[in-house]
Amino acid sequence: MYNLGVVRRNIERADPAAVERLGRLGVATIHESMGRAGLMKPYMRPAWSGAQLCGTAVTALLHPGDNWMLHVAAEQLREGDVVVAACSADSEDGFFGELLATSFRARGGRGLVIDGGARDVRELAAMRFPVFSRAISAKGTIKATLGSVNVPVVCAGALVNPGDVVVADDDGVVVVPAALALRVAEAGEAREANEAAKREKLAAGVLGLDLYGMRDALAKAGLKYVD
Amino acid sequence: MYNLGVVRRNIERADPAAVERLGRLGVATIHESMGRAGLMKPYMRPAWSGAQLCGTAVTALLHPGDNWMLHVAAEQLREGDVVVAACSADSEDGFFGELLATSFRARGGRGLVIDGGARDVRELAAMRFPVFSRAISAKGTIKATLGSVNVPVVCAGALVNPGDVVVADDDGVVVVPAALALRVAEAGEAREANEAAKREKLAAGVLGLDLYGMRDALAKAGLKYVD
Amino acid sequence: MYNLGVVRRNIERADPAAVERLGRLGVATIHESMGRAGLMKPYMRPAWSGAQLCGTAVTALLHPGDNWMLHVAAEQLREGDVVVAACSADSEDGFFGELLATSFRARGGRGLVIDGGARDVRELAAMRFPVFSRAISAKGTIKATLGSVNVPVVCAGALVNPGDVVVADDDGVVVVPAALALRVAEAGEAREANEAAKREKLAAGVLGLDLYGMRDALAKAGLKYVD
Amino acid sequence: MYNLGVVRRNIERADPAAVERLGRLGVATIHESMGRAGLMKPYMRPAWSGAQLCGTAVTALLHPGDNWMLHVAAEQLREGDVVVAACSADSEDGFFGELLATSFRARGGRGLVIDGGARDVRELAAMRFPVFSRAISAKGTIKATLGSVNVPVVCAGALVNPGDVVVADDDGVVVVPAALALRVAEAGEAREANEAAKREKLAAGVLGLDLYGMRDALAKAGLKYVD
Amino acid sequence: MYNLGVVRRNIERADPAAVERLGRLGVATIHESMGRAGLMKPYMRPAWSGAQLCGTAVTALLHPGDNWMLHVAAEQLREGDVVVAACSADSEDGFFGELLATSFRARGGRGLVIDGGARDVRELAAMRFPVFSRAISAKGTIKATLGSVNVPVVCAGALVNPGDVVVADDDGVVVVPAALALRVAEAGEAREANEAAKREKLAAGVLGLDLYGMRDALAKAGLKYVD
Amino acid sequence: MYNLGVVRRNIERADPAAVERLGRLGVATIHESMGRAGLMKPYMRPAWSGAQLCGTAVTALLHPGDNWMLHVAAEQLREGDVVVAACSADSEDGFFGELLATSFRARGGRGLVIDGGARDVRELAAMRFPVFSRAISAKGTIKATLGSVNVPVVCAGALVNPGDVVVADDDGVVVVPAALALRVAEAGEAREANEAAKREKLAAGVLGLDLYGMRDALAKAGLKYVD
Repeated sequence: MYNLGVVRRNIERADPAAVERLGRLGVATIHESMGRAGLMKPYMRPAWSGAQLCGTAVTALLHPGDNWMLHVAAEQLREGDVVVAACSADSEDGFFGELLATSFRARGGRGLVIDGGARDVRELAAMRFPVFSRAISAKGTIKATLGSVNVPVVCAGALVNPGDVVVADDDGVVVVPAALALRVAEAGEAREANEAAKREKLAAGVLGLDLYGMRDALAKAGLKYVD
Repeated sequence: MYNLGVVRRNIERADPAAVERLGRLGVATIHESMGRAGLMKPYMRPAWSGAQLCGTAVTALLHPGDNWMLHVAAEQLREGDVVVAACSADSEDGFFGELLATSFRARGGRGLVIDGGARDVRELAAMRFPVFSRAISAKGTIKATLGSVNVPVVCAGALVNPGDVVVADDDGVVVVPAALALRVAEAGEAREANEAAKREKLAAGVLGLDLYGMRDALAKAGLKYVD
Repeated sequence: MYNLGVVRRNIERADPAAVERLGRLGVATIHESMGRAGLMKPYMRPAWSGAQLCGTAVTALLHPGDNWMLHVAAEQLREGDVVVAACSADSEDGFFGELLATSFRARGGRGLVIDGGARDVRELAAMRFPVFSRAISAKGTIKATLGSVNVPVVCAGALVNPGDVVVADDDGVVVVPAALALRVAEAGEAREANEAAKREKLAAGVLGLDLYGMRDALAKAGLKYVD
Repeated sequence: MYNLGVVRRNIERADPAAVERLGRLGVATIHESMGRAGLMKPYMRPAWSGAQLCGTAVTALLHPGDNWMLHVAAEQLREGDVVVAACSADSEDGFFGELLATSFRARGGRGLVIDGGARDVRELAAMRFPVFSRAISAKGTIKATLGSVNVPVVCAGALVNPGDVVVADDDGVVVVPAALALRVAEAGEAREANEAAKREKLAAGVLGLDLYGMRDALAKAGLKYVD
Repeated sequence: MYNLGVVRRNIERADPAAVERLGRLGVATIHESMGRAGLMKPYMRPAWSGAQLCGTAVTALLHPGDNWMLHVAAEQLREGDVVVAACSADSEDGFFGELLATSFRARGGRGLVIDGGARDVRELAAMRFPVFSRAISAKGTIKATLGSVNVPVVCAGALVNPGDVVVADDDGVVVVPAALALRVAEAGEAREANEAAKREKLAAGVLGLDLYGMRDALAKAGLKYVD
Repeated sequence: MYNLGVVRRNIERADPAAVERLGRLGVATIHESMGRAGLMKPYMRPAWSGAQLCGTAVTALLHPGDNWMLHVAAEQLREGDVVVAACSADSEDGFFGELLATSFRARGGRGLVIDGGARDVRELAAMRFPVFSRAISAKGTIKATLGSVNVPVVCAGALVNPGDVVVADDDGVVVVPAALALRVAEAGEAREANEAAKREKLAAGVLGLDLYGMRDALAKAGLKYVD
């Protein structure tokens, strides 16, 4: 009845120029620039050290231990897409390995974000195909039950609509709604520019207490210095 | 009464040629080739990046915070063995460090798989002595209570009999019963050969949907494509 | 009423010579030398591979999602200090990033141990600023509620008093009370010297069973060897 | 920028008749009737034994350790509503106790579903005010940071829109989109009727293998009976 | 290849008289009487307050989110059996509810132990059908993949062979190998008799230190009393 | 070297009158009255439904799987004491059962708070002997390694000194330093009196927004109401 067994072929992807600008920003900066929204749970970690990705989401809704819909998703990929796979219940099985990575890449895919497990970690690292997952597991999966592709999904606690921008690095995974991509990129760039000046002062020994003018608020809140 | 306080000296180890062939396969391939059996829980991770091992199991049953039986196990090691240590209750203490690693290696041991903690991680990495464990902890252990050596154990959810083949890499740890070692090695090699052909096609852009002939089954299951 | 809203300016730091000697020992050795006390929970892990630190504790008591007191702590740092941050309830938010690291370093800080999350992992690694935390998270924090600086705190299960020595490496984080620093350093050095001799014997194939004279105790406990 | 600091006053609530019918069905039945969608994570448990609830969602987006928005939500309650509170990061603090329960009830509220902690468990049980939460904790919260009320939220892994129907019992918490409430109620009632007949046969000793006609499929899949 | 797709029809069940005697002992007593072996992980809890069971194991090996083999197991039940269900990977789905409970009971089944989730908790309690599980979840399961019935399984960390005795109460779940059932029952009864005398003395104020004669060992270990 | 192998016989217990007054307050109230300090982690739960306790702490430091020091602690009990047991590393073994409960009660003990497991839950409930623990486990423990009695311990994240007041109920466990007992009791009673008035108003439909005067602060923070 509800979003199952459906593949949406036409999705509205975020503006490529905005995606490209977001890809140059860090996840923490983007998250701050959105007002601290859109972050996946911190259990999502890179499958190999140094992985990072940025792209437009092709979403997949999977069932525990079943990766059928990843094959269906492969066909919907365009250059610059990232597959975002949610699961109808927690599962740490290894839904994804190097054969699917090979296929995704051949179809333009830039990486995978999966609220489940991945495997073939060494091969993925060698291919430099970025994967962010909740677990690493050699346990393979079956192809038995329909899920969906390109429906809204909740992945690791974050709502992802097809076409949204997904950015991942060592700090985690963040989702930017397609309609906000440009504004968030602009806000993030301004934030970074602003931080450079702060960094210089802090490196020179200026305290955050003074740089951010916190002393009054602290005193008003009742902070007491004792010897 | 039950498997406690016993050291079995003569165990039947898997055929060395089969062990050697299994060692060239990945854990995911072996697990698939056994019909998805024998995998330890995915919380078992390498203590240092890049660790991998393959060998015949000398098993040890430990108690929380007590590594006495690891010293007893050292004497039972032969060239090509791996110690597989289970614990009578969950414990993340550091049962194992570089002194025991030195001893194991001197007796022919190729590594350790322990459902508990390890320590001296930097030294183990420098020695390139592979350890797969559920935790890293500096907390040392006592030598007070008898367990057993070379009895069947349940380690991280998998049954391990002495002499079974244990293979571990970035994807996890898998156990192959000694009697099946050769058949699994053969099945795994066939699987790998088969995958090479698939990989080439997928890299050329052929979809898994077509390569594996999934379209009919998906349609029959009711998958609908919408725009 | 109770240790909230207070900054202690004058704390008694452990003897610098003892700190320096502790810094040359590993965490596991120090923990053993204290009689297996002072270890933080094993969920405390380095934010980047290879991080290690040793210094005197400036403590901070934070609230979930609020890093105000880290700014207050920065002012209390002296050369050789490490900030140890506890939280009034479990929180994996990213309390700390590269701007604060820049500030801490400019004030003499050598690192951070935090029972919470950190972010800007790539930048921290590039700066080689050591951080040990319970999580990595891009989620930023607010500055709204008073905690305290330089009061006794419980961090990841260990009691830390301001001025105590904190040592962290791949094996975890250990706290040495300031008054015991010298004695622990001496005990640890003796332990290391002692281990070198043992290592050599074990490498030559001598068993721990013989080196530590365990055979009698094992027999008395009832260990049986069977074929 | 993104759904923060906003209170929506006019929301479209599910049809009261449908809500009432859903309230007579169990969570498992409703979840099945939706095609296995809408279920919150199983860590959501009743705060007291026997709690159950059904109502229309007034949503709140909170921050860790901050329950300000629950007070704002109270004003938006109408007879038959349930507050569904999500949190911008995992937090087990006690956001809710008997004073807020008293207030919610006075405004027509029928219960609370919170992806965080609750307290005053004994008092809540005495009031028979149903609460489903991820934790029980005496730790109080502050009122410092704006979240939102009546925006879409992700609570315990499920997307909840204001006005959706929320049903909770011993088996968990399920969310029914307002627009589907009537259809799901009908499907659930049909399902229950159907189960009564099955139950009778199973109680008489008929096997599911025969009742559901599974024997052919099992044989075809290769199931072998051995002695 | 390995224990998949097989149903063993003839299994050797433990002696009914021994099963009956074990059923009058508590889980803690039985576990002690076996030398502290055979206990499942403590995450296994009763689905409803007061549940307890004792019977001979009919085992089932399931896959995540798939309860097909529970239907197959129903046919193998005899009066006095308990189904013990293991899963090939961690899964908290609701594999079992009141319809299956009705069927199991009609076939002589006395309860279920499952390393997965259960649902219909209220109905199970009303039926007083005992279930011990790792989770409660309304999430239903599919019937797609073959597992096995009456093969050895690892359930919640314990090895269970078909026909073994399974006993569960508020303290957990313990497995007694069929061949040891009588000896364990005898040892447990002796233990209980012995405890009655101890209980009386302890209730009269005699200290365990004296009752068990611990003072010498404590002094020898170096315990110091200070004022 | 450090607090191991020591039993302190003379400890300063909190004033009995203050203890008695604290026992009439709830844990949440006490915790608030201390400025939100002293709370143990929320994983500490009553072993049986309805358990609650209040008393002065006799502390014990245990090792994983070893309950020797609980027997030593029994001798140090006086009327009105509660044993607070910490563990040198996480352990869920069943350190405590009905025999020790019988002994503790005979010596004046009012309950146990243990950062480990307990067993004999049904018997403890029948005795109405209150136990708060992190786990329930039938797994017994050994008596092999010295810990200490009546030294400062960190139990479930809270520092406990011998003689402190420990209060536990459905909401958790809180520790009140002996020297603060009277002041906290007074503050808690005032808080309760104050809450009665608030409760009445909230029950009459007055909003917290008005009762606590939050509207200005919310508007100033930028909260926007939309239709």
